Order: sequence, then structure tokens, then C-alpha cells
Amino acid sequence: MNTPTPPAGINIVPFVSVDHMMKLVNHIGVETFLRELAVYIEDDFRRWELFDKTPRVASHSKDGVIELMPTSDGETYGFKYVNGHPKNTKEGLQTVTAFGVLSDVYTGYPALLTEMTILTALRTAATSAVAAKYLAPEEADTMAIIGNGAQSEFQAMAFKAILGIKKLRLYDIDQSATEKCAFNLSGKSFDITKCTTSQDAMEGAQIVTTVTADKQYATILTDNMVGAGIHINAIGGDCPGKTELHKDILLRSDIFVEYPPQTRIEGEIQQLNDDHPVKELWQVITGQIDGRTAATQTTLFDSVGFATEDFSALRYVKDKLVETEFYEELDMLADPDEPRDLFGMLLRAESA
Amino acid sequence: MNTPTPPAGINIVPFVSVDHMMKLVNHIGVETFLRELAVYIEDDFRRWELFDKTPRVASHSKDGVIELMPTSDGETYGFKYVNGHPKNTKEGLQTVTAFGVLSDVYTGYPALLTEMTILTALRTAATSAVAAKYLAPEEADTMAIIGNGAQSEFQAMAFKAILGIKKLRLYDIDQSATEKCAFNLSGKSFDITKCTTSQDAMEGAQIVTTVTADKQYATILTDNMVGAGIHINAIGGDCPGKTELHKDILLRSDIFVEYPPQTRIEGEIQQLNDDHPVKELWQVITGQIDGRTAATQTTLFDSVGFATEDFSALRYVKDKLVETEFYEELDMLADPDEPRDLFGMLLRAESA
Repeated sequence: MNTPTPPAGINIVPFVSVDHMMKLVNHIGVETFLRELAVYIEDDFRRWELFDKTPRVASHSKDGVIELMPTSDGETYGFKYVNGHPKNTKEGLQTVTAFGVLSDVYTGYPALLTEMTILTALRTAATSAVAAKYLAPEEADTMAIIGNGAQSEFQAMAFKAILGIKKLRLYDIDQSATEKCAFNLSGKSFDITKCTTSQDAMEGAQIVTTVTADKQYATILTDNMVGAGIHINAIGGDCPGKTELHKDILLRSDIFVEYPPQTRIEGEIQQLNDDHPVKELWQVITGQIDGRTAATQTTLFDSVGFATEDFSALRYVKDKLVETEFYEELDMLADPDEPRDLFGMLLRAESA
Repeated sequence: MNTPTPPAGINIVPFVSVDHMMKLVNHIGVETFLRELAVYIEDDFRRWELFDKTPRVASHSKDGVIELMPTSDGETYGFKYVNGHPKNTKEGLQTVTAFGVLSDVYTGYPALLTEMTILTALRTAATSAVAAKYLAPEEADTMAIIGNGAQSEFQAMAFKAILGIKKLRLYDIDQSATEKCAFNLSGKSFDITKCTTSQDAMEGAQIVTTVTADKQYATILTDNMVGAGIHINAIGGDCPGKTELHKDILLRSDIFVEYPPQTRIEGEIQQLNDDHPVKELWQVITGQIDGRTAATQTTLFDSVGFATEDFSALRYVKDKLVETEFYEELDMLADPDEPRDLFGMLLRAESA
């Protein structure tokens, strides 16, 4: 029988476990990781038009949602599996867990499998900071963070690494969350104020990050709380029926989004008419449209997270693995000596 | 800080490698595996109406396609990643590689990750045999297999295990493929005839399985080759632009399909009008409609593969792992002591 020699190790897919991801992030350093990741995210926003884009494929249940987020730039394909289960926290589980895969479009073979719970937290924060680079007031140095859960510290670190934010004003309805956030960020060169109300948190902040969970149509910010010139980084309004901002804030803000067809379903703007004008972040990054144009402008980044950002994160991790050993090799792809001889491989395994 | 104790081992996802899948299949025995898997497939076809069904999410390129196939029965969610790259064979790679995930809908947490290249070959064959149970002529004992590639032996084994097929008539345009198939099936109690034309292969066969690849709108079977009473198990017409049967055969056959919205795009019936009548396999299995009703009837199972079949296969493998040790444990899900303390987990890993 003709048995051509396949490329060596084609059955193997590199896998980055949670432990390896933590080692990788700590090896690089959280701030450097966020800064480098932000470059990949910006690069891919610049290449926006060549991506194969589709709204995420969601499977809803009464307890939560499981989503697949695929995209491709024509050479590389990536997707993320992610769940969203707000009730999980009470049961000692993560609201969001995720893993992702990067593949070679030419062969269809997976080239990377990685945990993405930690990586999603990092990419979400890096994306927020990239948007703020174009939208926040000049020389902003103070950020309010309303909602001090799992994503809050990552947001703080990204805004420090990428925008130089030093002063944080933290608020959560659960004070223990604020304590946890402040504790984790101690020693990271922040000037931290623990606030007792969201109004208090807004005092003197040029940027406000809203990142609450577990609320349906909540009003974390009311219109009177948001002064002129503020940049709102709205993270927590990220699925149908879940928003954080009063509609009046939206009506007087310039709204910037990732992928309008998805944001109109999942973001803060689900409260508005389908034809309410929004601006696309990628066009700001490429310079096709303006970001912030005036000191008194209220800007809103209505972030829901998009597949290209995960794609950027997967690309970055894959590139970093070349230099490190923070992965293991998974025997994931059947690799018979002769491609048509899958059954023969099974037979030979039996006699072996 | 309040740190509730999460369930033990929630970071772990069982992973079935290619090696473990081969060990599992050989431990159970190929025929027993196919028979037991067929029961799961039939059970899920009986529960058809409660599944969350969607056409596969495909990313096409000039070299092939990468697809995600999700489904859910409300309690369990499953998806398969699968590529289709006909040109891969020439490069020593598989045309189709796959892996799959099963998750708990209640928590959104993945509960199984497994190779599915081998498993897809098994579920495709088991599904064909399930369909043939309802559609093939009574007391059929001879099957022609046209196309003797990677799927051919699995089809033969499934038809033996589930329908008692003993006589095989093999044909491929590449004679070495036929030699490989016959060699692999020697010692499996078949009466095998290696044929030199597809006409020859059809002699005396009550069932014909067409399972060729790498052809665009090929005509593997012409109208005059198919006598009355034959059951056609058409596997190879499975993506847009790829068919195996002459249209005239379709016009005089009773056509049975898995999920009409998908089959009309991908199956043999892409050659027909969108309103051409087809019958759904699940309704045959539940007894709502008839399968074969007459000895002279030409029946066609226009198989393209559907997400529920992968779901059945994932369920079966997961159940089988309980009894065996053919898996490893992947540290895939971030599991901080306190769910909101993802960043703290990263910090503690650094100091550890």
C-alpha cells in the first residue's frame, strides 16, 4: 500500500491550561501582556473589513447562555466557546468560562486550544482601553469603576498600562467586592478610593467603567450622575435584557460600538430605536471617522465583546508560545499514515 | 473575605485523545460500539422536537470549510468543530478532522472534550445503518460500496452490526483504495468482491452506499444503474456543489433526510426545487410516517450529517467513560476560590 509520510506531529494541538495561562501572563507581566495584546486588538480592528463577521451563535436557557463566536481573516480561523450564567456566582462557579481555538484555514486543522476565561478578562479590558485611547478626555487620570467583580481589576490594570490612569474610585453594592478589588490592586501603584455610593465614585472621574453583573435592566448610572465630558466604558450591558445605563444618558452621548448588528441586540443600545446613530470603533481606529472631538462631549463605548477581539487574543497567545514552554501537547487529531486509512489505524491500535 | 468552597475539580474537563478513543473503541469492540451508538442516535431522533436545531455555522474558503455544529436538548449542550478539505488527502492530511464538546446547560461548564475524527466516522456509519433499518429491502444481505476511502469500512461494519449485511461489493476509481478497504475488512466475516466498475458493484446489491470525496457535481450513479427496490445510502453529497447521484434517480426515489433546511443546501437534493417533497428520518423512527412500503420502491437516504448525531455520539462516549479510564483530565476552567476573584487567583499564582 502507498503510505506517504505526513508532516511530523500533525496529530498534536498545543493546549494552554489555566495553570499555563497564569504562568504565561505572570511571566510576561500583566501590564506588558495588556499593552502587547492591545496592539494585536488594534491591528485586527484596522483589518476589520477582511474579517468574516457573524453575530455570535447563542443557545439560551432559563439559567444562562452558551455561545460560539467564530471569525476568520481568510488565513486563520478562530472561535471562542463562552457561557454566561449570572446565577453561577452564588454556587461558587464563574459567571463566564471560556475556551478558544485557532485553526489554519488552508488545512482546517486546529493549531491552538486554550483556556479563555482569564484570556477573555484580559482582552475585554485591553479592548476597553484601546477604545478609551480614542474616546476619553485628554489627560484623564481618574477612573470610577462601578461593579467590582471578576472583571474590575483587569479594567484597572489595562487603563493604567495603556492610558496611564492612576486614580481609581471603586464602588459595588456589595462592599466585600470593593474590598477584594482594592486589596488585589494594592501595591500596583494606584491611588484608590473606596466609595460608598455610585454618585460618590463619580466625583472627579473623567472615565467611568460600569461592569456589574446579575442585573436585568438595571440603572447603574442615572442621567444626573454623568457630567459633560465624561467617557463611559460600559461593559456590563452585554446580553438581551441586561443593561446598566439610563436611556437618557444614551440619548445625549456619542455612542461607539464594536459590531452594530450584535450591539443592537446585546448592548446598552437595545434600549434605543434600531436606527439610532452609532459609530464603529474600527473606523475611529483607522481614522475614517472622529473619536472624541470636544472636551464637553459625552462619549460611550457600548462594549459587548466581539469575535475579532478573541481572535486577536488567540493570535497573541499563539505567538507568545513560540518563545515559552507554557503549553502541553494534546493528541487531538487522528493521523493515519495514509489519510484514507482511518479504519486501518484503528485496527493497528487494537493489535498493538 | 468570604470564600465559599467550590465543588471539587470543577476546573477539570475530561479529554479523550485520539489514542484513548481508539482504545475505547477497541475495548468495547467496533461492532458493539456501533450497535450501542445506534441506540443513542435513534433515541435522540425520537426526541427530535425538543432539540435546539440550527443549520451548521460554516466558514468557507477556497480550500475548504470549517464548521461549528451546535445543538442542545435543554439539559445538555453539544457542539462539534469539523473541517472539510478535500485537497488535504493529497497532502497526507485528513479531509475531515473533528473534535467535540458536551456541556451542562445549567452551569454552562464543559463536561467533555473529545477527538471526533474517528467518532464522526462511527456516528456517520451508525446513522446510515439506523436509516437503512427502516428503509432497506427486507432481508437485504448485499451492499455495494462505491468510494472506498476513510468512511467505507465504517459503513461496512455498521451495516454488518446493525442490519446483518455480509456481502460487500467494493468499487473505487482508485483501485488501491479498494485493496485497502478489502484488506482492512478481511477477517471480519464478510464475503467481499472487488469490482472494476460501479455497474459491476451494483450487481445483486439491495443496498448501495455512495461515499466518494473530492468531486464536484459528480455522477457516481446514473439512472440506468439503479434497479427498482434498491436502497441508496448517499453519504458523499454533503456540501454545496458536491453531489453524487444523477438527478433522474432523485426524481423517482422516496427521499429521506435528517434536517431539511440543511439538506436542501448540502445534500443530493440541492439539485431539486426547494419544494420537492422529502421525508424526515425522525418521523419514520417515531412511526409518524412510513419508511419503505413496497419491495419495488427506490429509497434514498440523503445523508449530510446533523448536529444531533454528534450529540448522541458525545453522550455515548461520556457515558462510556464512567466505566473506563480512557481519558485524561484537562485543567481547562479557571476556578478561583471566590468566583469574583479571578485577578486574585492570577496574583496568587505569581507569588506561588
